[in-house]
Amino acid sequence: MHAIIQRLQDCLGLAGVLFEKEDVAPYCKDWRGIFSGDALAVAMPKTTQQVAEIVQLCQELHVKIVPQGGNTGLCGGATPEGDAPQIILSLKRLNQIREIDLANQTITVEAGCILQSIQEKVAASGAFFPLSLAAQGSCTVGGNLATNAGGINVLRYGNTRDICLGIEAVLASGEVYSHLKGLRKDNTGYDLKNLLIGSEGTLGIITAGVFKLFPSPFDHSAALVAIDDVSEMVALLHELQRRAGNELCAFEMMSRESLELTIRHFPEFNRPIFTAAKYTLLIELANFEVDNSSASNRVQAVLEETLEGYLVKGAILDAALATSEAQVNEFWAIRDHITLAQAKEPGNIKFDISFAISKIASFIKSTDAILQQKFNGVQIINFGHLGDGNLHYNLCAPKDAKSDYILNHEKNMTELVIAQIQLFDGSISAEHGIGQLKREYLMHHRGRVAYQMMVAIKKALDPDNLLNPNKVLFSEE
Amino acid sequence: MHAIIQRLQDCLGLAGVLFEKEDVAPYCKDWRGIFSGDALAVAMPKTTQQVAEIVQLCQELHVKIVPQGGNTGLCGGATPEGDAPQIILSLKRLNQIREIDLANQTITVEAGCILQSIQEKVAASGAFFPLSLAAQGSCTVGGNLATNAGGINVLRYGNTRDICLGIEAVLASGEVYSHLKGLRKDNTGYDLKNLLIGSEGTLGIITAGVFKLFPSPFDHSAALVAIDDVSEMVALLHELQRRAGNELCAFEMMSRESLELTIRHFPEFNRPIFTAAKYTLLIELANFEVDNSSASNRVQAVLEETLEGYLVKGAILDAALATSEAQVNEFWAIRDHITLAQAKEPGNIKFDISFAISKIASFIKSTDAILQQKFNGVQIINFGHLGDGNLHYNLCAPKDAKSDYILNHEKNMTELVIAQIQLFDGSISAEHGIGQLKREYLMHHRGRVAYQMMVAIKKALDPDNLLNPNKVLFSEE
Repeated sequence: MHAIIQRLQDCLGLAGVLFEKEDVAPYCKDWRGIFSGDALAVAMPKTTQQVAEIVQLCQELHVKIVPQGGNTGLCGGATPEGDAPQIILSLKRLNQIREIDLANQTITVEAGCILQSIQEKVAASGAFFPLSLAAQGSCTVGGNLATNAGGINVLRYGNTRDICLGIEAVLASGEVYSHLKGLRKDNTGYDLKNLLIGSEGTLGIITAGVFKLFPSPFDHSAALVAIDDVSEMVALLHELQRRAGNELCAFEMMSRESLELTIRHFPEFNRPIFTAAKYTLLIELANFEVDNSSASNRVQAVLEETLEGYLVKGAILDAALATSEAQVNEFWAIRDHITLAQAKEPGNIKFDISFAISKIASFIKSTDAILQQKFNGVQIINFGHLGDGNLHYNLCAPKDAKSDYILNHEKNMTELVIAQIQLFDGSISAEHGIGQLKREYLMHHRGRVAYQMMVAIKKALDPDNLLNPNKVLFSEE
Repeated sequence: MHAIIQRLQDCLGLAGVLFEKEDVAPYCKDWRGIFSGDALAVAMPKTTQQVAEIVQLCQELHVKIVPQGGNTGLCGGATPEGDAPQIILSLKRLNQIREIDLANQTITVEAGCILQSIQEKVAASGAFFPLSLAAQGSCTVGGNLATNAGGINVLRYGNTRDICLGIEAVLASGEVYSHLKGLRKDNTGYDLKNLLIGSEGTLGIITAGVFKLFPSPFDHSAALVAIDDVSEMVALLHELQRRAGNELCAFEMMSRESLELTIRHFPEFNRPIFTAAKYTLLIELANFEVDNSSASNRVQAVLEETLEGYLVKGAILDAALATSEAQVNEFWAIRDHITLAQAKEPGNIKFDISFAISKIASFIKSTDAILQQKFNGVQIINFGHLGDGNLHYNLCAPKDAKSDYILNHEKNMTELVIAQIQLFDGSISAEHGIGQLKREYLMHHRGRVAYQMMVAIKKALDPDNLLNPNKVLFSEE
């Protein structure tokens, strides 16, 4: 038994340390089952002070640390790899809501809080916490901060970093960095908050964060829209932003193929509108403003009027408006089931990518054509947050292909799409991060100068490469 | 003549280098006349490549570099100090607008562009560039980025970093970091953009930036409001945010003393409402949403209705609504003249500070009382962006005091206010930065752990301490 286990038990008590193989195993594999590794133990601190003590112990005993939240990441950033002695530091039990300050419109939460529990706690206080994503029932806010998570409310509220006003983190030195004052303006030196957010546990272990709260939206309005032309989609996006401002909450795009796949696996979602055009949009608006002067739903009127104009000029082919909150949720259920449908296919390749919105149409046209030419019949499951310039551009095998099709073509397909992303000045990771999955592409993608800056910062803040080694950047040991 | 001058001339031509004492002098002093230093020359590159060459030259010849934009900073961050050989690198001539991409709603500008010229260029294209501050006629966007400037539109749009999607910068190595793709989502490694923004030229020389554009607001509505109680102010702020959402553009606060001072020096601004209460608010809303369903000005109605409710319940003492765009501008002119009035007093001490909004009332009450007790009759010129938690809490001598009053008490007053800021968990610099002015307070204020992180990052990215030495952090040479 490695010395670290006894020392961790001294620090955390018996209940705070897992070290039997079968107890540790679930933490050593990502939920998609793509990555796995070994760890000596899982340490489960309940306080920031305990996190600091664990880091000091690991430093002393030369044991590496893999921080982990809800283990819902998509890039293997929280999964151990390599054969250096290492532990998983699970933040799950560091899960108190420290403060809701309604007069400052902020909440201070510890890293292990489940995202959905924060949403619920804030809703109960009469305010609104906007961060929302598919894994919200099991992901932790510490993981959201470590990866700068995106999700479905980015168009109006921004990414995780945009709603976070400050963090607390344990550094590789075992010291605690803390800046939880809840300030909306603070120009006192370098922006350490944003450096740690999105660094995937490689520069520090985020233990708490303070977030902005917002007034609750009400009167949601949504529509499904059948549309062929990506440029017209962008025009419609800007028209709605001009007319509805920030009340436009979501502008999601789904390709016909992604809906056909979903209906094949979940026939209950079949709707005539999905086969009418190359793409279906899911558009959502919400009232954020109390308007006593009119009884009508103002944003619904804006949405109707705008879509009518687009129908008349032939820029869209069809539109269906939700007539109830239940129908709004039903529209979203379709969107959410694309991922589940994909999981039923024999292998698939996922790309979480982004572009200047002005370049999306050309990227899709060019990349669709090249893929079909080189991999005839490949299913392009293209959907995503068009309003943010973010596509989930995923590939499944042709319908009649053998079960090892994706396995055989994965490398070529990946390299082709990544070359296209470079060509159209896009990003290889819009919201999922780098982790292990995209590490080998990072230097070429961001360029040597940016990569070397990152390496220099990693060395400066974690000279012994103690924290989440070999994630985001390759270890240089 | 130092060897650098000849080498700079070879690189930039004769017109690109100032080295005569009288030509260099204006660049060596900040505009408030508080800081001054010496420089061998002023280098004025026209391209990013030239900036890179200058950095390489300076590295070779061991000459330090002080980057400078419009020289409108308030903390001495762009003014040379010390006696090491150094040059000023003026970005003024690097001033092209590289691209306006309306389909992506972005603009790409070089560092030397004057802020106001960007606003005008964008307005001419039909869009809106929100960054706006008093110095906009002479400050450059590079300086705005280097200091993460705030200004009068932060409540709705955020600080400079919030509207910037990417930057280009020359590093201490002479290499060019570039990430100008205009992406709204990009999780590819550490957040280098935000690290460089606000680093005041100490980590890199920002040469260009890409910014979000927005739909133009219209139908501005504004009111002056007389109010005694700071807690009621905060309640009114939240009521307006709940009712008008992001259409609330400004929520500015001015103490009675700050208005009395302004009227004393500029009697034309006298208005009965200013003497009615301890504080006057300047509130502005604007319509951002085309609403064809009603001919009325919706935000004006919200403002009127809300203020009427507050009048009825006695939470405010008086209110005056602007009845024209000209009157909205007149309201702002009063706010802008506070600073000019202060400049006419014999000495003053400026604090640009911020707090959680929930703590502002207690800070003001406590600090006002202690100051009056220790410095009887001191004029507390307290005004600022209450909606952001940001106060410009400034001090002038008592009306009958000798002209050296401030000089004699500056140190004690400063330390008293800074201790109060610490006590109420505030920031010693909300939007102006650190520069030379607040350097000695930074370590204590942010704590040793944060300060040492900043020092480590500075050493990692600028190991020879070439860029703007001794600003923000003390040089450790």
